[in-house]
Amino acid sequence: MTPPDRPTLGVGLIGHAFMGAAHSQAWRTAPHFFDLPLHPELTVLAGRDRDRVTEAAARLGWASVETDWRRVVERDDVGLVDVCTPGDTHAEIAVAALEAGKHVLCEKPLANSVAEAEVMAEAAARAAARGVRSMVGFTYRRVPAIGLARRLVAEGRLGQVRHVRAQYLQDWIADPSAPMSWRLEKDKAGSGALGDIGAHVVDLAQYVTGQAITGVSAVLETFVRQRPLPASAGSLSGVAGEGMGEVTVDDAALFLGRLSGGALASFEATRFALGRKNAIRLEVNGSEGSLAFDFEDMNVLEFFDGTEPAERAGFRRIIVTEPEHPYVAAWWPAGHGLGYEHGFTHQVVDLVTAIAKDEDPAPSFAAGLQVQRVLDAVERSAANRSTWTDVPA
Amino acid sequence: MTPPDRPTLGVGLIGHAFMGAAHSQAWRTAPHFFDLPLHPELTVLAGRDRDRVTEAAARLGWASVETDWRRVVERDDVGLVDVCTPGDTHAEIAVAALEAGKHVLCEKPLANSVAEAEVMAEAAARAAARGVRSMVGFTYRRVPAIGLARRLVAEGRLGQVRHVRAQYLQDWIADPSAPMSWRLEKDKAGSGALGDIGAHVVDLAQYVTGQAITGVSAVLETFVRQRPLPASAGSLSGVAGEGMGEVTVDDAALFLGRLSGGALASFEATRFALGRKNAIRLEVNGSEGSLAFDFEDMNVLEFFDGTEPAERAGFRRIIVTEPEHPYVAAWWPAGHGLGYEHGFTHQVVDLVTAIAKDEDPAPSFAAGLQVQRVLDAVERSAANRSTWTDVPA
Amino acid sequence: MTPPDRPTLGVGLIGHAFMGAAHSQAWRTAPHFFDLPLHPELTVLAGRDRDRVTEAAARLGWASVETDWRRVVERDDVGLVDVCTPGDTHAEIAVAALEAGKHVLCEKPLANSVAEAEVMAEAAARAAARGVRSMVGFTYRRVPAIGLARRLVAEGRLGQVRHVRAQYLQDWIADPSAPMSWRLEKDKAGSGALGDIGAHVVDLAQYVTGQAITGVSAVLETFVRQRPLPASAGSLSGVAGEGMGEVTVDDAALFLGRLSGGALASFEATRFALGRKNAIRLEVNGSEGSLAFDFEDMNVLEFFDGTEPAERAGFRRIIVTEPEHPYVAAWWPAGHGLGYEHGFTHQVVDLVTAIAKDEDPAPSFAAGLQVQRVLDAVERSAANRSTWTDVPA
Amino acid sequence: MTPPDRPTLGVGLIGHAFMGAAHSQAWRTAPHFFDLPLHPELTVLAGRDRDRVTEAAARLGWASVETDWRRVVERDDVGLVDVCTPGDTHAEIAVAALEAGKHVLCEKPLANSVAEAEVMAEAAARAAARGVRSMVGFTYRRVPAIGLARRLVAEGRLGQVRHVRAQYLQDWIADPSAPMSWRLEKDKAGSGALGDIGAHVVDLAQYVTGQAITGVSAVLETFVRQRPLPASAGSLSGVAGEGMGEVTVDDAALFLGRLSGGALASFEATRFALGRKNAIRLEVNGSEGSLAFDFEDMNVLEFFDGTEPAERAGFRRIIVTEPEHPYVAAWWPAGHGLGYEHGFTHQVVDLVTAIAKDEDPAPSFAAGLQVQRVLDAVERSAANRSTWTDVPA
Repeated sequence: MTPPDRPTLGVGLIGHAFMGAAHSQAWRTAPHFFDLPLHPELTVLAGRDRDRVTEAAARLGWASVETDWRRVVERDDVGLVDVCTPGDTHAEIAVAALEAGKHVLCEKPLANSVAEAEVMAEAAARAAARGVRSMVGFTYRRVPAIGLARRLVAEGRLGQVRHVRAQYLQDWIADPSAPMSWRLEKDKAGSGALGDIGAHVVDLAQYVTGQAITGVSAVLETFVRQRPLPASAGSLSGVAGEGMGEVTVDDAALFLGRLSGGALASFEATRFALGRKNAIRLEVNGSEGSLAFDFEDMNVLEFFDGTEPAERAGFRRIIVTEPEHPYVAAWWPAGHGLGYEHGFTHQVVDLVTAIAKDEDPAPSFAAGLQVQRVLDAVERSAANRSTWTDVPA
Repeated sequence: MTPPDRPTLGVGLIGHAFMGAAHSQAWRTAPHFFDLPLHPELTVLAGRDRDRVTEAAARLGWASVETDWRRVVERDDVGLVDVCTPGDTHAEIAVAALEAGKHVLCEKPLANSVAEAEVMAEAAARAAARGVRSMVGFTYRRVPAIGLARRLVAEGRLGQVRHVRAQYLQDWIADPSAPMSWRLEKDKAGSGALGDIGAHVVDLAQYVTGQAITGVSAVLETFVRQRPLPASAGSLSGVAGEGMGEVTVDDAALFLGRLSGGALASFEATRFALGRKNAIRLEVNGSEGSLAFDFEDMNVLEFFDGTEPAERAGFRRIIVTEPEHPYVAAWWPAGHGLGYEHGFTHQVVDLVTAIAKDEDPAPSFAAGLQVQRVLDAVERSAANRSTWTDVPA
Repeated sequence: MTPPDRPTLGVGLIGHAFMGAAHSQAWRTAPHFFDLPLHPELTVLAGRDRDRVTEAAARLGWASVETDWRRVVERDDVGLVDVCTPGDTHAEIAVAALEAGKHVLCEKPLANSVAEAEVMAEAAARAAARGVRSMVGFTYRRVPAIGLARRLVAEGRLGQVRHVRAQYLQDWIADPSAPMSWRLEKDKAGSGALGDIGAHVVDLAQYVTGQAITGVSAVLETFVRQRPLPASAGSLSGVAGEGMGEVTVDDAALFLGRLSGGALASFEATRFALGRKNAIRLEVNGSEGSLAFDFEDMNVLEFFDGTEPAERAGFRRIIVTEPEHPYVAAWWPAGHGLGYEHGFTHQVVDLVTAIAKDEDPAPSFAAGLQVQRVLDAVERSAANRSTWTDVPA
Repeated sequence: MTPPDRPTLGVGLIGHAFMGAAHSQAWRTAPHFFDLPLHPELTVLAGRDRDRVTEAAARLGWASVETDWRRVVERDDVGLVDVCTPGDTHAEIAVAALEAGKHVLCEKPLANSVAEAEVMAEAAARAAARGVRSMVGFTYRRVPAIGLARRLVAEGRLGQVRHVRAQYLQDWIADPSAPMSWRLEKDKAGSGALGDIGAHVVDLAQYVTGQAITGVSAVLETFVRQRPLPASAGSLSGVAGEGMGEVTVDDAALFLGRLSGGALASFEATRFALGRKNAIRLEVNGSEGSLAFDFEDMNVLEFFDGTEPAERAGFRRIIVTEPEHPYVAAWWPAGHGLGYEHGFTHQVVDLVTAIAKDEDPAPSFAAGLQVQRVLDAVERSAANRSTWTDVPA
């Protein structure tokens, strides 16, 4: 049956690797569970290699392909450009799309430098004045447990926030024989663990607390400086080929920070935490309560209510699958958990809803720029004997 | 882009409530992640109310609707009938579909009585002789952690199985004011917690151990015998209306059992375990190792390897998101967990693959009948002072 | 310095194996942390072998030894007899001690048969009329988390109890080559897992809920019927010697039960749950709340408060180390957990306090008899095809 | 019975608050579970107030009292002085005792300044040359799970260590109305969370990895700068009285560090982590394996063995109660956990054993000095805009 009569939104997706697949699933799935004001159409998928993009479009459900992203930006049947390419191309694509009047969803980190991010934020501001919307893809905000965490903080249930512990722990290159990837090259990825996964916990810490990081003290480390070149231009699951390549990004980033409301925070992002697969951990202690989250148990939020009598107080394991929880009512009965990809579906829902309401979606490019400034302060502190480094407001 | 050139399989789905929605998502999603030998088409959705089924078809992505399931069975463009109705209609629909030469996927429990299930299993056997396939929807078998559990047992890593603890704990009617539903009426649902959720843990215990339950001793209980009628013919999330209805099924079922390989087992199914939302727990102890699973942390399997030296032995928390794990390679990188609905997608994959290979998929209707015989023995034991009751082979 | 001026209580301990060591530590330790109304003196230790009991007395801190328990009962400097021998000797020793006017603490299970337990309960009742006190050693009642569990139920925080899940899982004879022990001989131990560890969970389930088990349906199993004889008359950690002995008790006991208040319960006691070392698990679901406990994390009680809004409800992990918790104020600051042996110290405190107050301590021999009747009903049901078997009131 | 014929060791304990009680229990208990080469006698307890020390000696089991610690040092019946006073007195007492030829056990942190600690370490070195031994009380080393952690690292099971995460989280002054204590005064305590609890995790990180911290970048914070004066000179559980006092120490200390073997480390010590009672958390990631520990579940060590195939790898929860584990064979059967105070008993065992063997026990005063240098570097970095600050070797 034809879906309800409503305007469509033609989507053009640039990139079809890991993020492209996740975004495709989101664009396909959102209208089946959420009553969207605009109906997204999977209009066009862009990739440089015609054979590969054609195969990907068939598999991922896109109606057509382009081998030059510029063509996507120009097409009349495209209303929104979704940027899922490596960070070195974000600025050019996003700015062009915004100037062409297309809404833009751009993967994080927004850019590989503060300068690029500034250009993008300015373009977004100009576009917004014309009703053209933009959003940066800090997807983990859309995990229901994270949404609940923010709600509890915003309601004052934690009181004054004093401590944040934020970690993003992976281990996919803990083995020195894991091959090179574009994610290990500074010119493509901008930074290593810092921008790839550290950016997420910077965003989450700020999002959940509602406070900004005002300064940092940091160290960066590259444990393995040379790795086998990949057998082919693959991705994370690459097989090693011949020859060695230079790792030009950080393997791990650790930093201390202060938040605008007076809290102390510690951050860690690493791809060398053996046994931790995608452990995004966030712990917040306030004067009235505390929170703890770990993405390895993503449907759960732990909450300590300090107003309970000591006899009965304890971290409670809230299974975040109740209809009262963010996004959950659209899905399954209580206890029937969601997975990684659902965050992307929720991102589509929030973005399309904002576009239809003619509102600026969050997180904006300005928010992405602010995260970029934090990452930049981290790099400057690390290069300057960890000296405290303010994050420009 | 058009998907790869391959035969299609027209699917007709009967029912569009909770299970219908889950199956729809599976039919839509499977071809985007798995390289299926047949391309499923969402041909027709059936429901008794034309307005409601039309709305559902639009929302769930079905191309047409019928208000009489018999029409679905007759349609030439339907190759497979997917039965997601209450249990009292399974036998009639499934048998008719099989006799019409349609492959059948039937939700569990297979039927509301052993007699019906026998008829269905016979029809399935006859159909299989003609190359028409059937499967019963014990979906939790397709959770990767459960697949891994079975693999570990089959590889002998647990040695001789001695104990099984299987529980399915929910709490959605723990509140006496929760309204009536068809699931609480014996003539529609056959039984209560026993058939609805107990059937799942019976199947899982047998599937993971590879052994059959040979006898049981049981008690059944109905804690709340009258409930408010629902305001409208809703489902789980129903709102109470006026008047009271009679609960004619069990609220909880507990039974002890013996497995064909000599193990002792205990089973519990209840909708009154306050705070447990969908806790499907399975624990298996063998002479060499042990396993533990809880669906409330569905991406994890705990495994104790008894061959490790005592100094370093312990239940290990395997995050079942590695490419080596069942079904996982098709999805996301390690640590990016799956959700409840993915089991249905895997079910579609296994079913379509078996059909294309001209093989009988598992679990068969015969397997569904055997589970029904266990449930029947439970009811007979409970009605006979818990006396040990053999399950017919 | 001499302790505060107060009456002393001479203690005579019979037995110096595992339980004797645990009780000795309790008698030594209690007065250093609790302000006891009577000062216990470790007067005499009894054991059959003079050399071994002399060594044990020196090690465990006892002032003298006897090789015949009857001498202990007769001694004027003994005010309390503590019975830590195998179950087949409990009745004779305890009755003789009570008749001699000595208070008695007797390890569980109270006896090896209902008949013996009845004699003991009668002797206890007669003695109580003369101010002579008796207590059976269900020590796990004195774990602070269990005390808190009982308190929460008694306060009504669980509402009406509907489900109890009680398990005591060990694995110390899961290996078929583990040698014989008196605990595997029916004439000494009375029963196997049932009386040794099942008795504990029967007591805990009744203690925490405040309800009695009214009937059961049971199965018993002996997985390994012959074992190597021990190299020497050792205990749990015995080394295998030559020859084989017959295991005449159950390795595992599973039973269903009903409680006097209408709840359903399941029980399991086994020494074959590989990887579970001392997993005493108790889960209680009521109409208003739920509880969960596992001795493998003994300083924690999980509590689900069903009166919380669904958005924030969850099992909370109460670390039971606050001064508000039972027994805890006498020990360390919050978060500094207690261990296994502390339960025995608390048992001494409660016993000595009751004696000084001229009150009957709990659990009484009558309570021990009632547990014995449950165990007996379990054995009778298991011998009678699991038929439901009432527990005499 | 008299204990086995062996030399005695007269112990003089200075201080009878929290630490004094814990040490007393250790001195009393150790000989009952461990076959000590010297028999410790609880000879004398010192405290400034005669009434209070007399009461404490009776309660804690000491044979005599002194109101001037100098008298303890002079007594011929004292062979070992155990220093459990606030940090500002450690140096004077310990040096006097060593010079008087008494072995010394000194609570941590060793001193309130590097200068004092240097004097103490020099005194300890001089004393050692004369056979007089000294040890600093980093008790948590003696938790069996920590001993196992060190063993696994030392055996190479983690490979090259890359990450350490060490946290000591408490919440006992999270409430701004919690009263003053000597622990919040710089002149008595030296520092706040840093020295009180941060010292423990500095020691544990170094002990478990076998590596030294070579430099740090730090922040310190005092969230609540004024607190009510206590009603009386109490301790942690103090009740607020009239007037306000100045908090002159840190409430929280966070720092990054590098270890001598190339690992990155992060440290946090705070008394404001609401809901965390005594959460000493240590996580270590190496190239071959990982470890995780949390004192709130103190009988458990989590271990990830990276040499396992990915299909079966996972953090295993080792219940550290097997006879193969450090110190455990002396206590109870597997699964019968130990508590907080057992670490102090193990400390006594190790100390007495070293004295009898005429060996230097660990951790030495030199090790205590090195920890002090780390704490000092933390304070200097925090005072210097978090600039990287080397720890003198």
